[in-house]
Amino acid sequence: MKSLHRSDLFAWSAFDEARNVDFNGTFWARDEGNVMFDPMPMGDHDLAHAHELGGVSWIVLTNADHVREAAELAIVFGAQIAAPSGDRERPDLHGVPVSIWLDDDELFEGAQVLRMHGSKTPGELAFQLGDTVICGDLVRGQRAGSLNLLPDPKLSDKAAALASVAKLAALEPTAVVVGDGQSVFRDGAARLREIR
Amino acid sequence: MKSLHRSDLFAWSAFDEARNVDFNGTFWARDEGNVMFDPMPMGDHDLAHAHELGGVSWIVLTNADHVREAAELAIVFGAQIAAPSGDRERPDLHGVPVSIWLDDDELFEGAQVLRMHGSKTPGELAFQLGDTVICGDLVRGQRAGSLNLLPDPKLSDKAAALASVAKLAALEPTAVVVGDGQSVFRDGAARLREIR
Repeated sequence: MKSLHRSDLFAWSAFDEARNVDFNGTFWARDEGNVMFDPMPMGDHDLAHAHELGGVSWIVLTNADHVREAAELAIVFGAQIAAPSGDRERPDLHGVPVSIWLDDDELFEGAQVLRMHGSKTPGELAFQLGDTVICGDLVRGQRAGSLNLLPDPKLSDKAAALASVAKLAALEPTAVVVGDGQSVFRDGAARLREIR
Repeated sequence: MKSLHRSDLFAWSAFDEARNVDFNGTFWARDEGNVMFDPMPMGDHDLAHAHELGGVSWIVLTNADHVREAAELAIVFGAQIAAPSGDRERPDLHGVPVSIWLDDDELFEGAQVLRMHGSKTPGELAFQLGDTVICGDLVRGQRAGSLNLLPDPKLSDKAAALASVAKLAALEPTAVVVGDGQSVFRDGAARLREIR
């Protein structure tokens, strides 16, 4: 996995040819048990790296469209899965062994859970880890050095989406780590405020 | 290929398991003929993308250790290869059909050529494309959001290397695009000045 801006954060990626962006999984190393967000498939090298870092206790999904390799990696690592309560009825989550359904504004394994409104699934979440927010689908990085919103046709409510982005910006994050595209590792709040 | 911070710049990457970083090629689309820097192997999707953008006129190498897929892609695209004059005797360039040997401080296809001193090959170059500099090996991005120098044991002269980095910073680039690791797309000069 690649080193992010903090020694406890890593990412691994696969290039998506349909959108010309990387899809990223995020790995958070913590003494209380490591956490993966929106995990992409992992090759042997990254699996070994994750094992060296102590394995995985929790796999956290930001939204039902980011199940990705969660079920398979939960078995590999003996991890539990947490997913957004608001996406509980989405077909993509049927058959995924979710242990905990997460709601807005709770603390989960040291991360602040933040509901994103107006996105393409009803329950999308973001997570605040100190100076960093981890985003799923609503906020993405199609062009390096900037952040952007899901395209309008995919949003259920653009005004609500922009209000959720403003809520993230108000946390004044240094870094915004995205599930799709290129993350931003400095001045994250300023980049969020540029989103239109 | 992924979109960088400018509409004329793209990148494609492969993850290097030995270093846990991405190795990147850079694609510069221009009316006068497109240019590739330090090209990694290209899959069919990115090859098609490069053809859609008009093919490739020049493949430019920043240093003899970044030959990568240059010879093969030169054939695919009918491109010529340009490489650093100071690396002309390096074994890695033997057998590579180089058309032009580049020297410090010349203009090549609209890019300013900049000699980097003290690196692991004698002739390493960087290239200034307006607000962006493209680096080879000396400046790299091992940790997201920052830039770093090659490890000391690989440098031939650390003081000279730092002087070359200062020369890049003095150009006040917005973006520093690296061949190895994670590039920086804002405040590039500030990130270069942090290198120790």
